[in-house]
Amino acid sequence: MWEDRIQNLELRGRVVSADEAASWIHDGMTVGISGFTRAGDAKVVPLALAERVKREAKPLKINLWTGASVAEEVDDTLVRAGIVARRMPFQSNARMRDAINQGEVMYVDAHLSEMVEWVRAAELGPLDVAIIEATAILPNGGIVPSTSVGNSPTFAYTAQRIIVELNMRQSPLLLGVHDVFVPGPRPHRSPIPLTDASDRIGAPYIAVNPRKIAGIVITEREDHFAPLPPVDDDMKAIAGQLVEFFLHEVRRGRLPKNLHPLQSGVGALANGVLSAFVDSPFEHLQMYSEVLQDGVFDLMDAGKMDIASGCAITVSPERAGRVFRSLDRYRNRLILRPQEISNHPEVIRRLGVIAMNTALEADIYGNVNSTHIAGTQIMNGIGGSGDFARNALLSVFMTKSTAKHGHVSSIVPMVSHVDHTEHDVDIIVTERGLADLRGLAPRERARLIIDRCAHPAYRELLRDYYEEAVKRGGHTPHVLEQALSWHVAYQRTGSMRQA
Amino acid sequence: MWEDRIQNLELRGRVVSADEAASWIHDGMTVGISGFTRAGDAKVVPLALAERVKREAKPLKINLWTGASVAEEVDDTLVRAGIVARRMPFQSNARMRDAINQGEVMYVDAHLSEMVEWVRAAELGPLDVAIIEATAILPNGGIVPSTSVGNSPTFAYTAQRIIVELNMRQSPLLLGVHDVFVPGPRPHRSPIPLTDASDRIGAPYIAVNPRKIAGIVITEREDHFAPLPPVDDDMKAIAGQLVEFFLHEVRRGRLPKNLHPLQSGVGALANGVLSAFVDSPFEHLQMYSEVLQDGVFDLMDAGKMDIASGCAITVSPERAGRVFRSLDRYRNRLILRPQEISNHPEVIRRLGVIAMNTALEADIYGNVNSTHIAGTQIMNGIGGSGDFARNALLSVFMTKSTAKHGHVSSIVPMVSHVDHTEHDVDIIVTERGLADLRGLAPRERARLIIDRCAHPAYRELLRDYYEEAVKRGGHTPHVLEQALSWHVAYQRTGSMRQA
Repeated sequence: MWEDRIQNLELRGRVVSADEAASWIHDGMTVGISGFTRAGDAKVVPLALAERVKREAKPLKINLWTGASVAEEVDDTLVRAGIVARRMPFQSNARMRDAINQGEVMYVDAHLSEMVEWVRAAELGPLDVAIIEATAILPNGGIVPSTSVGNSPTFAYTAQRIIVELNMRQSPLLLGVHDVFVPGPRPHRSPIPLTDASDRIGAPYIAVNPRKIAGIVITEREDHFAPLPPVDDDMKAIAGQLVEFFLHEVRRGRLPKNLHPLQSGVGALANGVLSAFVDSPFEHLQMYSEVLQDGVFDLMDAGKMDIASGCAITVSPERAGRVFRSLDRYRNRLILRPQEISNHPEVIRRLGVIAMNTALEADIYGNVNSTHIAGTQIMNGIGGSGDFARNALLSVFMTKSTAKHGHVSSIVPMVSHVDHTEHDVDIIVTERGLADLRGLAPRERARLIIDRCAHPAYRELLRDYYEEAVKRGGHTPHVLEQALSWHVAYQRTGSMRQA
Repeated sequence: MWEDRIQNLELRGRVVSADEAASWIHDGMTVGISGFTRAGDAKVVPLALAERVKREAKPLKINLWTGASVAEEVDDTLVRAGIVARRMPFQSNARMRDAINQGEVMYVDAHLSEMVEWVRAAELGPLDVAIIEATAILPNGGIVPSTSVGNSPTFAYTAQRIIVELNMRQSPLLLGVHDVFVPGPRPHRSPIPLTDASDRIGAPYIAVNPRKIAGIVITEREDHFAPLPPVDDDMKAIAGQLVEFFLHEVRRGRLPKNLHPLQSGVGALANGVLSAFVDSPFEHLQMYSEVLQDGVFDLMDAGKMDIASGCAITVSPERAGRVFRSLDRYRNRLILRPQEISNHPEVIRRLGVIAMNTALEADIYGNVNSTHIAGTQIMNGIGGSGDFARNALLSVFMTKSTAKHGHVSSIVPMVSHVDHTEHDVDIIVTERGLADLRGLAPRERARLIIDRCAHPAYRELLRDYYEEAVKRGGHTPHVLEQALSWHVAYQRTGSMRQA
């Protein structure tokens, strides 16, 4: 019964159809929707909007803001309907990606912690409508988010009007999992009073003036999670390298036995590596991360993880039933925060988070490309990787040493796009080995990365490049006219082997 | 009388010659010395060490850590004596630069806020000796720094032994200007309790166990500041663009009338632009910066600046006499902090600092190179620019549109080295104009940067490149085989015009 979930009596009168709510969205508006890594996204109103635009055959363009990626069907449907003029701050949909790479959608990918600063400071123009998926609405009108918090609190606070998608399929046990804290205005803001991953510093709901809630749409459309591939040998090898490295740091007294709070990037590789920590000797682990994937629940089930703080729960379809049906088992150990807080430089630096993110490619000096294939075609976006890598105690980037059946080396002379500079990369690890770059100069980093991380098929080529570069000198030696030749060869022939 | 400045009676017995103190430094040691942008650096003991090595003709190598750059004579003499194996985290000396670029000195340039985290976590190995210039030693043994704080507190806390250079030429009025606060250990660190640039949160001295002070060397060797060139028309034009932009933001209600705390990068351009703010309508300005240069005192003299928080006072030789002889006029408005705090991501983000740094070059998508000429030869280092640019409310990068008498364009198709990614660059300004990049996608950024910031002599060439790149598509269009061709042409012919 949806009435049980709308505990503010006045607001029960504002239940509307998705079509009606969608009718409030007009050409030129900016629309901010909930959703982070496909969890807790607004679904039915955006889809109803696309239906309406197709039906009316009248052009309508909006600026679409989210937390991060939303369900495939949402981005896909909106972009196919030609509705999206601008997109921020992250996406991972194939059709959206194509539209961005063809210049049809203006995409501003941003550090995920930072976007709400721009929204609050009105640097991006006004937000007309916020559409937020909720598990419940409390007697005071407070909105209880569902499987993610994302940017929803600040969207709700700043939007002209709010539409709630009340999702009956989201577990009511999510109430109490969220911790909504939003920093005050600058320049006289107080510190964020969070000193442990388990701290609760805010309210378990988004406090809004109920009058701003223009409509509530009842829905039963579930989160649409993507399947995760099984943990493969390369992932196990990467995890093995990392476990060995962390053990070494513990023995040297540089890390406590339960390590520091962990962050793990989004996707199959990061998740697989985290899952493989089940076989490690570490116990009482904490997550201070953005997305909580299957690996987190693997570690909790194994009794290895005490607390997981994030901004979204994104599990594989196989895992979702088990997690959400047994939420009672996990909920006291789960905290979902706004992405501003899960990814906040202040907190990440203070806690000394161990950040483990994935790279598309790294160069011999340790610069990392997380986003652009051959420097031009974006995959997803920088996401939260910069928030964590810059501020972490240890910043790890992991990648398989090759891609495209060996035709692409993930270690290259010069990355074709820089998302993370050498200053923000402490460790590079592939299935071949781990390079500990801390305190090393570029020339030292180059030798180590080539020796430890590169695939044998590319190692000599990298050495040749480096030796030629060193002849020309410099703190960061390069042969500029050849620096991007591996990518040029890939563009022309489909293989870096032809460089 | 030096006795007046050593107020701990026991420590008066530890006065030694520079030669004796230098004799405690042995081959293979790591030595951390005070000094930031040539202010408050340890001078006589490092020079005595160089003398000894020359005299003894016995090879000796050390790892040299500092706050940032130190006096020309210190880096120059040490590198000429062949003493420096490794150098961290910043330098600006011609001979040191050459040695680094030739691979003779292993140089690790780092975000200036971050190095002490590595030192405390023992990630760089032990610190054998700290040499710290002081104005006075208090009865409790507390060391009062001189014209900079830099990394000295953490060097003093972690070093095996401390050598103090008590500098009789540094004004005793500096006592009370410093605010020494060092965050606690992670992962259970408390917030940094600083919420206004004027806040004092620590002690006016470095608290150490007096037993760790192995020796005190009395010196009268002054800080050796570099002259600043006069403010030229280009600097005035850049300042004019910025003032107009800030006024626009105030009118739009996005900035208060006294703006937010300002950071201004090191060097002639940044200083000249800050000086030119004397003619702006802004009042009650605050600095939250790393180095306080002449421009700060210009603004204070003009009654426009209320408070200046930094980590060093580095003024031109012409200005130094006036500032330090009249320190009484300024001292209540000056705060010198450890560079960890002046540059701390937590504080910069909280205060919403307006960061104004200089670029060597920027590309059409807004990526910035602050350090490497033609991608290989380092100039100085990333310094604090990343600490500020990443976390600022507004991140401005300024550069003249050309260098080398017009043979180098500061706006290029692709930067040859990335220190600051497009995500960390809000505003690019040259004497030609200002590009406000907030909320823009790469293709939009490119058109704006070319139109507003590039020199007319290169504008059409940049448009040609961009149009060719767009034909190939991509979120960030590039013609990879030509992306670095301007730099290659510069390397080959001395001019980008030949690209």
